[in-house]
Formats: sequence, structure tokens, C-alpha cells
Amino acid sequence: MNKYVIGVDLGGTTVKAGIVSFGGTIIDQLSIPTQADKGPEIVVKQIIKAINEITAKANGNEIAGIGVVSPGLVGLDGNTVEAPPNFKNWDSFPLRDSIANGLGVSIPLRIENDANAAALAEAKFGAGRGEKNFLFVIWGTGVGGGIIMDGKIYHGPHGGGGEFGHASIEYDGPVCNCGNIGCIESYIGQRYLSARAVRYLKDKTDSLVWKLVNGNASEIDPRILYDAASKGDAAATEIMSEAGELLGVAISSFMNIMNFDLGIVGGGVSAAGDLVFKPMNEQVKKRVMAPLRPVARVIPAQLGNQAGILGAGGLVM
Amino acid sequence: MNKYVIGVDLGGTTVKAGIVSFGGTIIDQLSIPTQADKGPEIVVKQIIKAINEITAKANGNEIAGIGVVSPGLVGLDGNTVEAPPNFKNWDSFPLRDSIANGLGVSIPLRIENDANAAALAEAKFGAGRGEKNFLFVIWGTGVGGGIIMDGKIYHGPHGGGGEFGHASIEYDGPVCNCGNIGCIESYIGQRYLSARAVRYLKDKTDSLVWKLVNGNASEIDPRILYDAASKGDAAATEIMSEAGELLGVAISSFMNIMNFDLGIVGGGVSAAGDLVFKPMNEQVKKRVMAPLRPVARVIPAQLGNQAGILGAGGLVM
Repeated sequence: MNKYVIGVDLGGTTVKAGIVSFGGTIIDQLSIPTQADKGPEIVVKQIIKAINEITAKANGNEIAGIGVVSPGLVGLDGNTVEAPPNFKNWDSFPLRDSIANGLGVSIPLRIENDANAAALAEAKFGAGRGEKNFLFVIWGTGVGGGIIMDGKIYHGPHGGGGEFGHASIEYDGPVCNCGNIGCIESYIGQRYLSARAVRYLKDKTDSLVWKLVNGNASEIDPRILYDAASKGDAAATEIMSEAGELLGVAISSFMNIMNFDLGIVGGGVSAAGDLVFKPMNEQVKKRVMAPLRPVARVIPAQLGNQAGILGAGGLVM
Repeated sequence: MNKYVIGVDLGGTTVKAGIVSFGGTIIDQLSIPTQADKGPEIVVKQIIKAINEITAKANGNEIAGIGVVSPGLVGLDGNTVEAPPNFKNWDSFPLRDSIANGLGVSIPLRIENDANAAALAEAKFGAGRGEKNFLFVIWGTGVGGGIIMDGKIYHGPHGGGGEFGHASIEYDGPVCNCGNIGCIESYIGQRYLSARAVRYLKDKTDSLVWKLVNGNASEIDPRILYDAASKGDAAATEIMSEAGELLGVAISSFMNIMNFDLGIVGGGVSAAGDLVFKPMNEQVKKRVMAPLRPVARVIPAQLGNQAGILGAGGLVM
């Protein structure tokens, strides 16, 4: 008989649950609809359903604990989840206690914010193995983050630590959705980046990008840009390279203040690889304080979509 | 018989030493020349001289420990000090051990970076009393900082935590001495701020500032600007207000990432009071993430020049 944990990754569309080994292997997993439009009580029922179904697949092996990761602000009480985006009628809800009551079994149960848990997953099983301190960045639709400090998730005084996307890189830059000005998210978050690309490409009618989208500007997104750039298109390369540089700027400022030497970047856009990581690292080497220069670097995350389940499992290991 | 500690504030010009009560009162203090141009061995002799002289004034009261604060990077070993600015022939030097050997008595002895110690002093005896987490900023010639996290000085993985002055507020802004671009220091550090003021005032010949310096641009500094502004000069008010705003921008980004709600700002320029704190707080309220908005604020430091001795003393309490 082996000892495993269960990791649950709550998303706006699906609840994913997996059996995770202490070495970080997902033994088995499943996915059911979240029903996020039906309010938190129904979502909890779905989570419990997912937990029960995956537990049934554990073949009698011991389940040492259950971790659940959720979008939104997870309170310092380790129970309350506030306003997860795309979940209806969900202001502030006692997620941990509701799951525990619904399960009715006594087993260690912890919840955590999804970006923080992904950072933990990278620390335990991914690009951050052996590293005690790093900034984790999820570069996708938005720019999210988590901070691993002294080997643990950094929550901050109010539980919302790691909102790296809302550090400003230009005090008089574009207004961000959050209310701040010049946030790194408002430059390189997927939506903003696509819009920047459309503006930049307006007079570059010979760019391959226009061929790839059949002239349809609304289809320009980071994947198309990456595709064009990897085929040698200069304009697309320039756009992705600038995005990498800007992220490097924001990471450097963080490193200077917090004295960190490592950034780990995951999320959809980061799939562009060297195209973004090379200019990112160039900026970091140039911009961090002299004592950090020999050691500072940014590397790709390793766990991709598995980070949620693995991070959730990692909470109870 | 009372129990006190000794706090030593090592500066480029003078070594200040004081007897400090556990309540944060400086009972007695003295000051002797540092002789920073004569190398670290002579500086250590001066420190020991200062310690011995102030100990002689303790009137037989118990001295529970000695704290020494120094400019430069203090290593995580709590011994080595690297490259304090304005100290000659000082690359990397074992300051703690050298003082301990020279003193020849067995008494708790700790060293710390001066900005970090000033942050600790504000936490123990000043504007940060009762606060577990805040960013401390010294706004003077440069822009320095220290971070109090969970009631303790945050050192970071390499001992250089809190270099807040070298966070960038504009990715394509002015080049800073440190090599980074758009650092907050390169906008509002005293030298840079004076230069900005001269440029701004060039065509504002009727500004009171020009009268106060008899038309001599090289004499324009934050004190003059503050003087003119407090007498109602619009241009000087604008310059100081903008400087406060920019500091607010940098503090907001820090608050967003680290989830902090408090900034404490000291140093010479901060003496301008409301003139800078009001615009600073306006930016902070506008720019921090929604959950922080009701609580985020920046307040003036309270300890001024005493922060060094008090912070040094605080190290061994």
C-alpha cells in the first residue's frame, strides 16, 4: 500500500482532481464541470464529487490529505475565498469548511490561491527544485504571480501577496483594469499584448502575421505572433522580444528590492521560449544591482497545466 | 542599577555612540571622527574608542550588548561589511570580529546595515510601533530602504534586501548610477531632484526659488524648494508635489506585490511634510489593489538622526 495525496484544481470551467505521489507524479486524474455560474454551494458539491470519484480510483492506497487550489483571494484563515473571477454569486465564501463538512471525513484539508500553489509546485517538483527563494510569474491572459520565500509560499499581511502583474513599469503609462497605471500586465497580458501588436503591425502590411490571420486583426494573439516569429518574421519577433524585455524590467525591480536572484516564468505566453526569455534575461542582467548580476536569471516553469493539481497536492505533503 | 545597551552609528564622517535604554531613550551620546580615509583597521580603532568612552559614562549600569550600524552591504554572516561608500581601502572587511577582538570583552555584539537598522528603530520606537510589516524609505541624497517583515529586518537571500531606490518607475526613463533605468532614485534622490528642478524652473523666471538662490542654479536643492513652496511658490510646490507622487508610485508597486499596507518615509527630503506626503498618499490610494485601498498609507518617520543609534541599540535588545 502506498501513501498519496489528492490535489484539486478549481477553475472557472472545470474541477480537476488528481492522485499525487509524494515524488510529484500524478497517478490518476479526472475532470468534471465546475458549474461556476450556479453559486458556491453547487461548486462545492462538484468539488466533493471530484474528490470522491478520484478517491475511488486510489485502489485502497492511503490518502494522507487533500489540497484544493482556487482563483481569488484566499484569506489568511485558510478558509475563506473572496471573489474568484468568473464565479457567480461568490463574494466571500468559507470554502475549506464547506468542503470539510461535505466530505464528512477527518483528513487534512488545505486550500490555497492557484498562482501561489503553482509557485509551490515549481518549488517542490519543477524548475524551482532546491531553490529557497524565487518569484514565480504566470504570463497568460493576465500576469499573475506567487512568491516562494525561505521555501514557503509568501502570503503577505493580508493574504494577497505576489500580485506581481500590478507593479508599474511606467508611472504615466496605460491605465490598467486594476486602477493602477503602467502595470506590467497592461503591457504584456495577452489581451493588451495583442492590442499592442495590432497597433504596431498597422503599417507593416508585409508581415507574415497578416497572412497567418488572413488579414483579420482580431485574430492576432501571442500564439500567432510566436508562430510568425519562429518563421523569421521581423515584426513579430520585435513585438515578442519587447514583451520579454518589459517583463525583465519588472522582474529586475523586484529582484533589487527583495534581493532575489531567480525568476520562474510559466503560463501560455511563456511558451514562446527563447524569443522572450533571451531579451528578458538581457534586461535582468543589465538592471539588477551589481552584487546580483552574476547570479540573477529567469528560467521557464516546467509543470505547465499540471502545476495546479501538483501544487494542491503539495499543500498537504 | 539599570540595564542599557550601546548603539554605534558608523558614518563616513563621524562615529556616533550612545547609551540606549530598553524603552528607546538615548541616555547619553558622543561623536568622534571616523577617519574613513585611513582604512578599516583605523576605523575599527575609532569605533572601539567610541565604545570605550561611552561605556565610561554608563556610571556602572549594566551594558547588555553593543549594536553597530554601518553603510554598505552587511553579509548574512553578520560579520563582513562590503564596500561602504566613502570609506577608503575597504572592499570586504570582517567588521564584527575585528570590533569583538579589539574590545576583548565578552558581550553580545551585532552589526547591521544602517538603513535596515533605521527601519528597526522606527519599528521599535518610532512611527512603526505596533506594526509588523512596513516598507521604510530614506529619502535624502539617494533613496534607500529597509523592510520590516513579521517584526524583523528582512535581509533577503544575499543580505542586500530593501534596495527600494533601485526599483524602476519608468522602463525607458533616465539611466541611474546603479546601471538600471528609471530608478525612483534617479527621479527624486536629492541630486537628481535638484537637477530636475533647475530644468523645470528654467523659463519660470518669476519663481521665488530664483530669488532665494540669488539666481544661482547650483544652489537649488530640496530645502530651497521646500522653503519657496511653503511661501506659496507655485513652481516649487509643483516640483515637490511631483516628487511625492513619484515616490507614491514606487511604494504602490511594492505594496501590490508584497501585500503591505504601510510605508514610512524618513530622510532629509521627507522634512517637506504634507507638501510631499499628501500627493504621495493620493497616488498610493489610487494605485494599490482594491483590497489594500482602505488601509494603505504612507506616514513620516519619527526618529530622524537618532534612528542610527536607536536602531543599533535595538539590535541587541
